[in-house]
Amino acid sequence: MRAVVYKKPFEVAVENVDDPKIVHPADAIIKITSSCICGSDLHMYEGRTAAEPGIVFGHENMGIIEEVGSSVKERKVGDRVVLPFNVACGFCKNCLGGFTGFCTTVNPGFAGGAYGYVSMGPWVGGQAEYLQVPFADFNCLPLPAGTEHEADFAMLADIFPTGYHGAELADVRAGESVAVYGAGPVGLMAAYSCIIRGAAEVYCVDHVKERLDKAESIGAIPINYDEADPVEQIKDKRGGQGTDKGIDAVGYQATSAGSSAVGGEQDEVPNIVLNNLIETVNPTGALGIPGLYVPSDPGGVSDAAKRGALSINFGKLFEKGLRLATGQCNVKRYNARLRDLIIAGKASPDFVVSHEVSLEEAPGAYVKFDRREEGYTKVILHP
Amino acid sequence: MRAVVYKKPFEVAVENVDDPKIVHPADAIIKITSSCICGSDLHMYEGRTAAEPGIVFGHENMGIIEEVGSSVKERKVGDRVVLPFNVACGFCKNCLGGFTGFCTTVNPGFAGGAYGYVSMGPWVGGQAEYLQVPFADFNCLPLPAGTEHEADFAMLADIFPTGYHGAELADVRAGESVAVYGAGPVGLMAAYSCIIRGAAEVYCVDHVKERLDKAESIGAIPINYDEADPVEQIKDKRGGQGTDKGIDAVGYQATSAGSSAVGGEQDEVPNIVLNNLIETVNPTGALGIPGLYVPSDPGGVSDAAKRGALSINFGKLFEKGLRLATGQCNVKRYNARLRDLIIAGKASPDFVVSHEVSLEEAPGAYVKFDRREEGYTKVILHP
Amino acid sequence: MRAVVYKKPFEVAVENVDDPKIVHPADAIIKITSSCICGSDLHMYEGRTAAEPGIVFGHENMGIIEEVGSSVKERKVGDRVVLPFNVACGFCKNCLGGFTGFCTTVNPGFAGGAYGYVSMGPWVGGQAEYLQVPFADFNCLPLPAGTEHEADFAMLADIFPTGYHGAELADVRAGESVAVYGAGPVGLMAAYSCIIRGAAEVYCVDHVKERLDKAESIGAIPINYDEADPVEQIKDKRGGQGTDKGIDAVGYQATSAGSSAVGGEQDEVPNIVLNNLIETVNPTGALGIPGLYVPSDPGGVSDAAKRGALSINFGKLFEKGLRLATGQCNVKRYNARLRDLIIAGKASPDFVVSHEVSLEEAPGAYVKFDRREEGYTKVILHP
Amino acid sequence: MRAVVYKKPFEVAVENVDDPKIVHPADAIIKITSSCICGSDLHMYEGRTAAEPGIVFGHENMGIIEEVGSSVKERKVGDRVVLPFNVACGFCKNCLGGFTGFCTTVNPGFAGGAYGYVSMGPWVGGQAEYLQVPFADFNCLPLPAGTEHEADFAMLADIFPTGYHGAELADVRAGESVAVYGAGPVGLMAAYSCIIRGAAEVYCVDHVKERLDKAESIGAIPINYDEADPVEQIKDKRGGQGTDKGIDAVGYQATSAGSSAVGGEQDEVPNIVLNNLIETVNPTGALGIPGLYVPSDPGGVSDAAKRGALSINFGKLFEKGLRLATGQCNVKRYNARLRDLIIAGKASPDFVVSHEVSLEEAPGAYVKFDRREEGYTKVILHP
Repeated sequence: MRAVVYKKPFEVAVENVDDPKIVHPADAIIKITSSCICGSDLHMYEGRTAAEPGIVFGHENMGIIEEVGSSVKERKVGDRVVLPFNVACGFCKNCLGGFTGFCTTVNPGFAGGAYGYVSMGPWVGGQAEYLQVPFADFNCLPLPAGTEHEADFAMLADIFPTGYHGAELADVRAGESVAVYGAGPVGLMAAYSCIIRGAAEVYCVDHVKERLDKAESIGAIPINYDEADPVEQIKDKRGGQGTDKGIDAVGYQATSAGSSAVGGEQDEVPNIVLNNLIETVNPTGALGIPGLYVPSDPGGVSDAAKRGALSINFGKLFEKGLRLATGQCNVKRYNARLRDLIIAGKASPDFVVSHEVSLEEAPGAYVKFDRREEGYTKVILHP
Repeated sequence: MRAVVYKKPFEVAVENVDDPKIVHPADAIIKITSSCICGSDLHMYEGRTAAEPGIVFGHENMGIIEEVGSSVKERKVGDRVVLPFNVACGFCKNCLGGFTGFCTTVNPGFAGGAYGYVSMGPWVGGQAEYLQVPFADFNCLPLPAGTEHEADFAMLADIFPTGYHGAELADVRAGESVAVYGAGPVGLMAAYSCIIRGAAEVYCVDHVKERLDKAESIGAIPINYDEADPVEQIKDKRGGQGTDKGIDAVGYQATSAGSSAVGGEQDEVPNIVLNNLIETVNPTGALGIPGLYVPSDPGGVSDAAKRGALSINFGKLFEKGLRLATGQCNVKRYNARLRDLIIAGKASPDFVVSHEVSLEEAPGAYVKFDRREEGYTKVILHP
Repeated sequence: MRAVVYKKPFEVAVENVDDPKIVHPADAIIKITSSCICGSDLHMYEGRTAAEPGIVFGHENMGIIEEVGSSVKERKVGDRVVLPFNVACGFCKNCLGGFTGFCTTVNPGFAGGAYGYVSMGPWVGGQAEYLQVPFADFNCLPLPAGTEHEADFAMLADIFPTGYHGAELADVRAGESVAVYGAGPVGLMAAYSCIIRGAAEVYCVDHVKERLDKAESIGAIPINYDEADPVEQIKDKRGGQGTDKGIDAVGYQATSAGSSAVGGEQDEVPNIVLNNLIETVNPTGALGIPGLYVPSDPGGVSDAAKRGALSINFGKLFEKGLRLATGQCNVKRYNARLRDLIIAGKASPDFVVSHEVSLEEAPGAYVKFDRREEGYTKVILHP
Repeated sequence: MRAVVYKKPFEVAVENVDDPKIVHPADAIIKITSSCICGSDLHMYEGRTAAEPGIVFGHENMGIIEEVGSSVKERKVGDRVVLPFNVACGFCKNCLGGFTGFCTTVNPGFAGGAYGYVSMGPWVGGQAEYLQVPFADFNCLPLPAGTEHEADFAMLADIFPTGYHGAELADVRAGESVAVYGAGPVGLMAAYSCIIRGAAEVYCVDHVKERLDKAESIGAIPINYDEADPVEQIKDKRGGQGTDKGIDAVGYQATSAGSSAVGGEQDEVPNIVLNNLIETVNPTGALGIPGLYVPSDPGGVSDAAKRGALSINFGKLFEKGLRLATGQCNVKRYNARLRDLIIAGKASPDFVVSHEVSLEEAPGAYVKFDRREEGYTKVILHP
């Protein structure tokens, strides 16, 4: 089959690779209809990880079941399904607790697995024609037959649940105020999720005009951190008060004000969003942190950053009695309910999708997305 | 001052009564700007309670602080405030637990107090020019100065929080399906609250066209129970499935299908909504029951009903593993957040208000509201 | 293999039946080391259900894995395991939500399955030498190798988690007071669980001296309802107050005061415990109801009882703002943590076990247990 | 009246000061029967805060109501009461949310107030004969009349609830494993609270033999961090696994291994406990942090420490999906339930009390406690 293969930093190619097979009786083979490029794929693409050439990318996958193993009970050939980016077994201690992003079965020696991602287990990515899905009864989320809402449903593999996870980690309730740092795809999904949950005010902090415009279009209040200290801007708008809750949808590659654009030259300040959140959120508040932080970053801006150690204003955090929750999204916790919002016409997360191209066009899409050229923000590949 | 005084069944009058005074240092006197007539006022008006002639009605009150006692700390003369219908102290065990609807201080020997209501303590009602408010720091919810959103804010005294309470008791989460029985003011507020919290599907069951139209106008799915069994209608629309959650916004004066209109001749069947909910909601679901049930109803349809005993399909409830939560709303739990939704322009609960009239017009308004004439569904009195 | 087979009301026999086989790749075959007789087995034994002759009893099972299907991943031949009485798949909507007692996969058309029980699916019981366990990775709880704590661990199949479920449904917190109705094995486990969770006062209501003695021995306060109204007794001991929380560990076969002994002639009053709990528990409290109620009871004391309809003091329940939660225990939610308490020496639930006998002695044990002769309260069969 | 007055670093004196008076109608005057010296008093005593000479110490207070203001409703002269160390109003947004440690009324411009503590508002301390208590209905927790359990109840002012808060912040559930760093009074109370809540295994990390012995005496597992890396010790005892939850009962004055005793020469490493917890706790776990961290520490070991900025292994924290919660204890959330445990004989927190002396002996007690001489660990002063 054809698949997007990592060749070396800043280069992927579409090549022929072996077709996936049923290896374990609980597996299914999915014929991919949509597979997205994720911002986190760029970490590997840019060579800032330990990913080796030859890896097939793609953890945001949906398609049609082509074949099922002898143990698969409820899912059938022909079912249209979307797969959580986390691969999970459903029966380990973490899965039982609902922490499917920390499955201890699928990636021995580590808590958490994913398709097509360095260190996340042996699972081949889905930017390809077919995909092997383990524990198919557990991992496949069934969708209505047909082709309707294809782009909306594709968002269920990762970014819609991940944004929602931010709102959940921050315990956002109806009538509350929330500051969301970052208005990329995950930040927009976090803001969108806060609005779905009934937040009264959602501030979106970024410095890219297109992103801030999208935030405003869904009812959030845009804050451009290039214009002034975002903490002060939010407090000014709130009569001197901070917000009830905060979400970090940026992660460790946060940048300081003044850089001209995403992807351009800018100063990475890995702790800036966390410390801004500590200032932004009122005492007794909560921080949800779906934005990625890593324990090892070869490209970190300092020795401490390289090993994932950040200088946090912990004294202030404690004085305010804040709580915070972190970690990759447990997609299975939310994806069925978010699917039902799409089916009911109450949510349309595909507003973040900027481009849909064929699988063969993936190499060019990677180049443009990495440079944020031509408005590339979220790309769906269709094999 | 002028006040709405209960004279006898089906008769109220606007009369001169003594002005309220600061009795305790924590009291405040409020100059009423809006006081609503509630469906539960009709229970007294119709003579179906132990209310004695002379009682001043009105538990949905807002206005301007006219005077404060020596102990009042944060509220000031001139503050615009809305009062929870429940009077509460803020420091008894139940108030500390957030159960301000069950305060044991303000109505000795009972858990819960209210303004202008039989058996709910000595608190005079607010369908009048002035109102004595105890524990003013605790009970007054401050509002933005001015007159904006007057009708929206008036809904914060009771029905908007009470509807929201239904959603909270039923643990309604984003993406879920909910059946709300009753589309009167509380039922509409419950449905509206479910939608604010991100429910995917909200079914509203009633048999009054105007109510069902209003339900539809806010994005709910109307179910007319005169047309067919509401349980079957909902399951038909859901491919044979029930809903995740259910809300009873009707209470003990529920009626069977077939009666031609609210207020007309109809068969009271006090357990019908509860048993319908048990059928409607899926196994593992939850029922929120803000609709009123009473332990003593002189007008009950049977001896059992007179003492508040209802035949419940408890075997089915258990088999499905359902949970249910009941009781009057703890208004203080929600009113600040719901106020903030109104201020932010994210909620406008005044869509349920049908009429606004002067205090002097109250007697006629009671007559029409009781008969549901001229579309009377929710009336605000302005002194 | 040898197995306990239901012959007709009041008669079981140990007979040769077919050995179980791996039918599905996710199955395992367990060599039973302990299988308990449960009070709910007596419903079938007494002929008060639709159970047909030929059914093999036994839903409280533990043993050693003898064989695994090709799909079983983590469990190995030789593992010592205990099985939840509920059979569950781990991937249906209810299982994903933690409601493994309401699995929709294992008993098509119904939410919930169990071994060896009428209407609970095709799963053969474990009062036998071997047992077929579906979805073995999900259903088997691993135990330390060896034979230590055999009786303690056997309690993890049903009654220890079921008692704990009562405490969880009633939301029992450290420092609270709880009334537990019923001091049979489940009631004792519920009281024990409340104590483990740090309850300050636990009242156990029963009228069998041995049970009340056991309750007292674990630190609970015994209340004999033959002596006086249990509600009044509890309130007298608490200075006129009720309790914070309540648990119904009796169910629909509740009896009135005055009958001389369990199993003797007594008046069944199926709603008495529920209505007593409504009186016993303070306003704002919660009721946990693990005790069984059924939607169809051929032996019910009235037409209403036969269809599971009970007269509940719902007006009082509402006035007090109580909440209640019901349903069979989702064993998988608790069994790993309860196992760890046993391993750490912090819990020893085997104090409820009265007899351990060989499988061949099962017929006599059923007779004595049904008649509560010779102190028979909880029996473990060892094949 | 006589009171403990701070004179200069390492010196307090018992002097005559003005008697407290009813200043506001909601005040009460308490005749102190017990007031404890807290480890956090030593911060001021050692001159490591901005506390000015003249301040009266004492935030752990209990006694008998001597006088009440005109607005006090439920508390009466003669009531025996214990006061939360946090002063709170009961009606601000934070108090309404249960965050009484973050009251915005009692210490204008800041969230949180306390008796006798620098920067915590104008409230005079209770190491004296009398104490002014504001919002007396809200702040006074009534106790049984008499003198029984005096030392147990004195622990309700601060350290028992603060320890319990650690267990609550870490979401400790029955059957879980917990690592508690620090076995001083708060650490012991945290471990004790975990045991009360039913934890299966509680590890207590310290290096003072007496503390570790006390930890062992209540059923915890002592870990001496002078002997080896505590993370490794815990994992060794758990077969290579970490714990489910962790509690930091040390705070910013944490020290490295190898120092010979508390109070002796040792290396302060303010982030060591936080980073050890991140290593100790399993993925998906939670950290409760009642140990104090401050945003400004003049005596900090580095410029960063002086402003409360700590180097945290945030990449690892995120990878493990941990959550953490911080802040001073909201005493009112727990103190009534903990009191009831003492009354019921289920908890006796006075095991941490090492000395009870008269008020006049306070200066010597401060000296010895600061030096940890003669086993001074927790001192109660009796006026």
